[in-house]
Amino acid sequence: MISFGIDPGSRRCGWGAVEVDGSRLTSRGHGVIRLPEASELSARLAILFEQLGEVVEEVAPDRIFLESVFHQKNAQSALILGQARGVALLVAARSGRPVGEVSPAEVKKAVTGSGRATKDQVQEMVRVLLGLPERAPSDAADALSVAIAGASAAKWNDLRDALGGAPPKRGGRKKGWRR
Amino acid sequence: MISFGIDPGSRRCGWGAVEVDGSRLTSRGHGVIRLPEASELSARLAILFEQLGEVVEEVAPDRIFLESVFHQKNAQSALILGQARGVALLVAARSGRPVGEVSPAEVKKAVTGSGRATKDQVQEMVRVLLGLPERAPSDAADALSVAIAGASAAKWNDLRDALGGAPPKRGGRKKGWRR
Repeated sequence: MISFGIDPGSRRCGWGAVEVDGSRLTSRGHGVIRLPEASELSARLAILFEQLGEVVEEVAPDRIFLESVFHQKNAQSALILGQARGVALLVAARSGRPVGEVSPAEVKKAVTGSGRATKDQVQEMVRVLLGLPERAPSDAADALSVAIAGASAAKWNDLRDALGGAPPKRGGRKKGWRR
Repeated sequence: MISFGIDPGSRRCGWGAVEVDGSRLTSRGHGVIRLPEASELSARLAILFEQLGEVVEEVAPDRIFLESVFHQKNAQSALILGQARGVALLVAARSGRPVGEVSPAEVKKAVTGSGRATKDQVQEMVRVLLGLPERAPSDAADALSVAIAGASAAKWNDLRDALGGAPPKRGGRKKGWRR
């Protein structure tokens, strides 16, 4: 299964793809789409739509994940993030692939084993888990961490479905996978 | 000149088109795109993208306007609005038409003559200005008011360009038209 993570922003959008085979994780690429700051917001969103759409088609993931957003510090930055996030969700929906969300705590837990890991620890563990020679750029590393957490969430949901709907009791964790 | 206004939201998106010929305003249609609440957010955004794109192609406006957003009450609602707004801006950009913003005060002023008019007064004046037999639904009326304000803003900018860059001094109003 190839899990694709997106970390959207109004100036940069990170993406990362991870192949999951049992407990084995392999990087299937990552990158940062840079949106020209001099352009109009609407033009930047159009670039994001096109470039992210191309990457998704090229990588051909099975599932796409974004981090859920809670506790934004202020309304203006939430609006700006929301505009890029809306376009990222749109790209995911239009690709016809299932779209899921994972919470920040789930991402930290899936990647480092602790829901309270620092951003730095998460990015370093992404490098270690995927055996990358060096850390991915910050936005791409964040997207890879979302892809890893999403894959983990998806695995439990598939198991749940196989078991006929009963969630596996494993620390009672709720995963944000949505159909 | 046909001015197209969009009032985006995560559950409903209003649109309205106004033809401006000198001081004469004529409605060129309005409507509300309803997004099924039972669907995933990403699926709702995909519906918004497709249906709004179809309306824009059908109406074939010269310019597209959205209301600028200030002072959102809370971050969570700003994020939700942002996601729909990002898709609306994307549709506008992909249509290849110029996209502009008008402030809430500019909308009130352009439609009622007062920057402090109530929502109810704005909607009633939209009906009167366009000679509609009855008020448009709330979201569509809001979109029509944005289209009217945008047309007014665009008119001053065209005049400014014709005068070689000097803005016409008329109450010193700054219009949010952006190139």
